[in-house]
Amino acid sequence: MGKVGIVSYGITKFSKEDSKIESLLLKSTKKLFENSPNLSRNDIDAVLVSTNNNSKYLSAILSEMSGIQPKISHTVESLCNSGTNAIVSAYSYIASGLADVVLVSGAERYDSPGQILEWDNSRGEFKHPIFWASIFTKSYKREFSITDEDLAIVSVKNHKQAQNNPNAISEKEYSLDDVLNSKRLTDDLRLLDCSRPCTGGASILLTSEDFCSKFTDDPIWITGIGQKTISAGFTKNTFDYMESTRIAASSALKMSKHNSSDIDVAEIHDAFSVCEPMALESLGFTDKGSGMDMVKELYAANNFKINPRGGLIGSGHPLGATGIAQTIEIVQQLQICANKRQVDDATIGLVHNMSAAATSSTVLILEK
Amino acid sequence: MGKVGIVSYGITKFSKEDSKIESLLLKSTKKLFENSPNLSRNDIDAVLVSTNNNSKYLSAILSEMSGIQPKISHTVESLCNSGTNAIVSAYSYIASGLADVVLVSGAERYDSPGQILEWDNSRGEFKHPIFWASIFTKSYKREFSITDEDLAIVSVKNHKQAQNNPNAISEKEYSLDDVLNSKRLTDDLRLLDCSRPCTGGASILLTSEDFCSKFTDDPIWITGIGQKTISAGFTKNTFDYMESTRIAASSALKMSKHNSSDIDVAEIHDAFSVCEPMALESLGFTDKGSGMDMVKELYAANNFKINPRGGLIGSGHPLGATGIAQTIEIVQQLQICANKRQVDDATIGLVHNMSAAATSSTVLILEK
Repeated sequence: MGKVGIVSYGITKFSKEDSKIESLLLKSTKKLFENSPNLSRNDIDAVLVSTNNNSKYLSAILSEMSGIQPKISHTVESLCNSGTNAIVSAYSYIASGLADVVLVSGAERYDSPGQILEWDNSRGEFKHPIFWASIFTKSYKREFSITDEDLAIVSVKNHKQAQNNPNAISEKEYSLDDVLNSKRLTDDLRLLDCSRPCTGGASILLTSEDFCSKFTDDPIWITGIGQKTISAGFTKNTFDYMESTRIAASSALKMSKHNSSDIDVAEIHDAFSVCEPMALESLGFTDKGSGMDMVKELYAANNFKINPRGGLIGSGHPLGATGIAQTIEIVQQLQICANKRQVDDATIGLVHNMSAAATSSTVLILEK
Repeated sequence: MGKVGIVSYGITKFSKEDSKIESLLLKSTKKLFENSPNLSRNDIDAVLVSTNNNSKYLSAILSEMSGIQPKISHTVESLCNSGTNAIVSAYSYIASGLADVVLVSGAERYDSPGQILEWDNSRGEFKHPIFWASIFTKSYKREFSITDEDLAIVSVKNHKQAQNNPNAISEKEYSLDDVLNSKRLTDDLRLLDCSRPCTGGASILLTSEDFCSKFTDDPIWITGIGQKTISAGFTKNTFDYMESTRIAASSALKMSKHNSSDIDVAEIHDAFSVCEPMALESLGFTDKGSGMDMVKELYAANNFKINPRGGLIGSGHPLGATGIAQTIEIVQQLQICANKRQVDDATIGLVHNMSAAATSSTVLILEK
């Protein structure tokens, strides 16, 4: 089985823009073509769309709008980690020999239907993600003696880091007081603790090893893949630890033959402020209960190796595009072209993308 | 790269039942488990859902309801050929080494949102599939001097064949006059020329070669895969021939090292009566313009090698389940357990599944 590389990408500004889903998919795909002078429409064997949008047949529509006539073409949906699911599917099409060149394009509108968790009647009317995030936050704070002031640092840090990301929805820094004084949504969550659903698109191009050199001298290899679905309903979940993330990270690191200490830069799924320290623990970057210490240390040292583009809190969270945007950030970091966001000596990176209270997670390891 | 086999299946009755999509997915999955005494929930590495339903995260929901905690889990959508797209995706997960055992479950409700083609504004308000089918029918009739009486035979034949399919929605035979006197929907289409959107579910289990023997002594191998997307908008299409089907069939047959004359039994995507003769030509079973002659000969000889379960016209068309139900029929034929539908000497079978005026097609070759 040959290697699979990421050879190009395109991404839009994340915003509250009222665009059609088809236009959003096309926009980042066009940017990808602009970034790939040697890419011909005929090169593309498969087009996978990642979205929670209710429109059907979007991969065929994107293909027609882009002048591509692919063999394989369909939409992939798995709520917030649709993007990395589509990337792993692209990997499998290539590694299986069914395709050599795959375009993955993710997009979402600010009013995505994926924001409301309709299926879990055990939660009554508490269907918005802020409710699981609120339970996570309460449990995590109680278990590890974490305060609201501690968690606010995640938001301060990620909004700050987003100021170096030209595509981020966040346009200004916030102080600790700004976060703590922002609108209180639940007992434990304020507005600035939350990532914002938004409009945006992101596309990447993956190829087999043999085809990489046509498109780039600097491919980024997917060397580790880990995925796990624990449940769909929230009631079976752990509340202060992400078990699906732990399992996915363990598989991905094993496949890549690395340890978490080898990772130079990582995109973490900080849908809410509590998710960043919890994920850092579950990914094995630090011990249980010490995720917040790690966040504080990084922030104090102005070290932005975790969520250099500002994470979901700073960048915005267009569901179907998020996992792809996270992956593009790590590609840029490893290609040493992340401008002001560039982390020193970035050679091994990690992407962590999850859905619905970490009931499922995907972890990717990327390398030069 | 090892082989990929189909080792079990489960299917529901197709009906106009008002069931929840989650219940439909679970129903055929339960039947699959009942058919697989050696299958443990822990065996399953991936759960792929095929549907046009707007509900999100259905693969995680199905997994939780079934007690499965898969690695890979997402929905695949590509309108009417979502089912075979999900099967090909399952194939790629296995052939790439990312999974050994994959459950593919498709389901749809009678009121599926995939029935209305929202994106093609070039058609004004003519968004229902009967309008493309009507243009297909008019063009095909004119080009090859085919009559309404000729095409009605497709419906008569497939309703008749469906009477031996316990899961079919059709519950009686129709005469030529019944078809010709059924409600006229457009200039060229009557009610009985159309497959009916309906409620139904179908699941199959695919495994790597090494894992097959745990589940069955009689695996059916996927030896050929062909897929092609030509366009999404109808205006770029051919009207009396299915170009995407021709290309998909050519690829699938080449991969399987067979010719169309080697095929013993086939499931053809007869969304409308005209689709069967057109597809027979595009698949290479007969020459251009002689598809209707082939249908007539088979009907006269009571040879049901084409659409033994009654096709979409006889069985009903629950979009996301259709491609999986077609595949199950060919598996049963090759395992010589199709009861009254059994075709003689069935060793090589073909599945043809398409979307939206054959703007995209999937062809699978299955073998003992």
